[in-house]
Amino acid sequence: MELLPRQQAQFERVKGIIEDTYRRYGFTALDTPVIEASEVLLAKAGGETEKQIYRFEKGDSDLSLRFDLTVPLAKYVALHYNELSFPFRRYQIGKVYRGERAQRGRFREFYQADIDIIGDGSLDIINEAEIPAIIYHTFTALGLNRFQIRVNNRKLLNGFYAMLGWEHRAGDIMRTVDKLPKIGAEKVGLMLHDDLGLDQDAVGDIVAFMAISGSNQEVLSALEGYRGRNEVFDQGLDELNTVVKYLSDFGVPQENFAVDLTIARGLDYYTGTVYETFMLDHPEVGAICSGGRYDNLGSYYTEKQLPGVGIAIGLTRLFYVLQEQGMLNGDLPTAPCDVLVLPMTEDLSPAISFATACRSAGVRAQLYTEPKKFKAKMNYADKIGVPYVAFLGEDEAANGVVSLKDMVSGNQEKVALVDAPHWLLERVAEKNRGQVVTG
Amino acid sequence: MELLPRQQAQFERVKGIIEDTYRRYGFTALDTPVIEASEVLLAKAGGETEKQIYRFEKGDSDLSLRFDLTVPLAKYVALHYNELSFPFRRYQIGKVYRGERAQRGRFREFYQADIDIIGDGSLDIINEAEIPAIIYHTFTALGLNRFQIRVNNRKLLNGFYAMLGWEHRAGDIMRTVDKLPKIGAEKVGLMLHDDLGLDQDAVGDIVAFMAISGSNQEVLSALEGYRGRNEVFDQGLDELNTVVKYLSDFGVPQENFAVDLTIARGLDYYTGTVYETFMLDHPEVGAICSGGRYDNLGSYYTEKQLPGVGIAIGLTRLFYVLQEQGMLNGDLPTAPCDVLVLPMTEDLSPAISFATACRSAGVRAQLYTEPKKFKAKMNYADKIGVPYVAFLGEDEAANGVVSLKDMVSGNQEKVALVDAPHWLLERVAEKNRGQVVTG
Repeated sequence: MELLPRQQAQFERVKGIIEDTYRRYGFTALDTPVIEASEVLLAKAGGETEKQIYRFEKGDSDLSLRFDLTVPLAKYVALHYNELSFPFRRYQIGKVYRGERAQRGRFREFYQADIDIIGDGSLDIINEAEIPAIIYHTFTALGLNRFQIRVNNRKLLNGFYAMLGWEHRAGDIMRTVDKLPKIGAEKVGLMLHDDLGLDQDAVGDIVAFMAISGSNQEVLSALEGYRGRNEVFDQGLDELNTVVKYLSDFGVPQENFAVDLTIARGLDYYTGTVYETFMLDHPEVGAICSGGRYDNLGSYYTEKQLPGVGIAIGLTRLFYVLQEQGMLNGDLPTAPCDVLVLPMTEDLSPAISFATACRSAGVRAQLYTEPKKFKAKMNYADKIGVPYVAFLGEDEAANGVVSLKDMVSGNQEKVALVDAPHWLLERVAEKNRGQVVTG
Repeated sequence: MELLPRQQAQFERVKGIIEDTYRRYGFTALDTPVIEASEVLLAKAGGETEKQIYRFEKGDSDLSLRFDLTVPLAKYVALHYNELSFPFRRYQIGKVYRGERAQRGRFREFYQADIDIIGDGSLDIINEAEIPAIIYHTFTALGLNRFQIRVNNRKLLNGFYAMLGWEHRAGDIMRTVDKLPKIGAEKVGLMLHDDLGLDQDAVGDIVAFMAISGSNQEVLSALEGYRGRNEVFDQGLDELNTVVKYLSDFGVPQENFAVDLTIARGLDYYTGTVYETFMLDHPEVGAICSGGRYDNLGSYYTEKQLPGVGIAIGLTRLFYVLQEQGMLNGDLPTAPCDVLVLPMTEDLSPAISFATACRSAGVRAQLYTEPKKFKAKMNYADKIGVPYVAFLGEDEAANGVVSLKDMVSGNQEKVALVDAPHWLLERVAEKNRGQVVTG
């Protein structure tokens, strides 16, 4: 995905807001290398990953490009274990590389925006309860409101399948149940019976369990009916209760959050709370943010037990979708500068001094001195979408003022040179006040 | 170069300040791909580049990792020519890849921070005059003051060698003259005579020319003595005069700028003003920012004539040097958060609500709920270097206050819960006020 300047400005805004939100939650920046030894990246990779990875030799080294941000994190934490403080909270917004066949909305080089909280030996459940708050505040800071964070707990599922005596096939059952939204309960029931060999009672129990829905309190109450039959289940239910209990303290409204027993998130890696976030008006997009709790970040790199919880936003994909759906706020300025300074005199000193003053004040200023006709200059201003143009002619110079034209309203005002940078700063801030996403 | 969290925080600061300065000068963000078709990247690359590049095959594609940000820019501008407005001003801060043998301070994966201004057919000289202002304000914004921007003009050199009748060997002469600071005038003179076959008169003229020094006005006056003998020289001198003339309007003090006739910057690419910036107390580091004017960005990608001017800061290398020299300001906070919130009650609601309020106000807050002894918690706060710790016990909760401890001074204060986020915001801003580089 290669963006034109105005799109890139929107992308930078989206990226900046995600980064700012992650930082407010106390995550530290990390910037692991893109190139790693293949043996590091592929230590626990499966066949699909091996096929997609960019791998090459340089001198005697067998190298690869990272395909996610989690594997490099595992290596980093293992390598620097003694220098880090735990819980270790890091964010990383960076590109990852997968040699997928190019298709609409899929890119071989794309940004992910990850956070992870890594404990040393243990990690308090409150960290899992905090994740929905981070997801919620990230998306609302962007301006997105119509989304839902769906949460489940893997212990609850594992415990439930253990109650039925089917814990040894829990992975296969989850994979089948995953198809529920697509093929419906009846077909899932048939597959559980025919393909996996579950008896009708177990199938009935599973279908009934997955049908539990309603408000968070209703779902949690229904789950209480299963308590006492399996220790792992009970623990999962306690964890889920804790996550829900602190939602409002974390500032997450009920309507953006749902306990959803059909969420499973892959197979082996996740071991506790799992999260998937969907856009309510665009379910076809799939999850825009996913993650969960895991018991061990890096058993391939260290003997230490490093449990954690993390989420990832597929930033490039999210931006692509927002753009496709027309959800980016077109009213926000995307020009490279806030003011285009047009000198109207032979001596450029007044214009240069004014641009310098603007820049010192934090106003993004561009001098335009190409020898073009006035119309061509204004055309340039229009094309880059600059909010203000500053004219500095003999008249203005003599009176210590500058003419400032609002390119949206067309209004033009003379402002004292000394006041103009601040004048611009205030108005530009106003024009940038809107949210980047609408919907 | 893989950084620990506290170093990474410093790196992010340096990067952020460079980016902010580039933006104030009206440059738009660009983010070209890291992976490109090898034929694109190697279109004009020489043997050295070919050796260093990371190149690999994926499916039917012959791909490489970018080794600079200029070649991808050339391709981008050629490809999107019709959608861009010229002058096109872009910045890019991104990683580039060179398979160099690992050595101190050289990395195979490193950041460059580039700006370029691209014209369509022509580009006004004022753009060349503006570059020293950007360099100056970038480094002073970081806190660096002891540096000098050295400037020359390739037309001046080419014109001068043409006067001597040696324009056909201008490249070889420049390469030899480049050794001046290392081997001295006498040896350079011998090489010009023995290796290149210049007669003693020409050698004497070159040595005399290169010896011109003094204040900018003194150098420019001495150069006037050569005027009228070669058109290209005169044009170069006019350009140099313009660059110097507007320095003070652009806010660049004389002491950070010098006309230096020995600066040449490579061979074919640059055609006008050239720049090299040195740290006065660390000449051994070499140039920390270089660039210049070129007549054509992308003749390999388009028929259009696209003159430009640009500079690059080797950001990873600069950061490495600043770190090595102990020039990074250790007083600035580098913790992942501004306040560590320690709940002292069973019910975590008050602590969570307080953390939520802090985050809404823009204070970076971390909850610490791991079941550890008080001493271990404070030890964690110390180790991450957090500026403030917030205690929320029964007492505080009952009185609607929070105890805030300044971890540097050790002072502890009770502040009303509603006022605390703003209280922290002000004090944290104060602690972050210093400059990232000292010296």
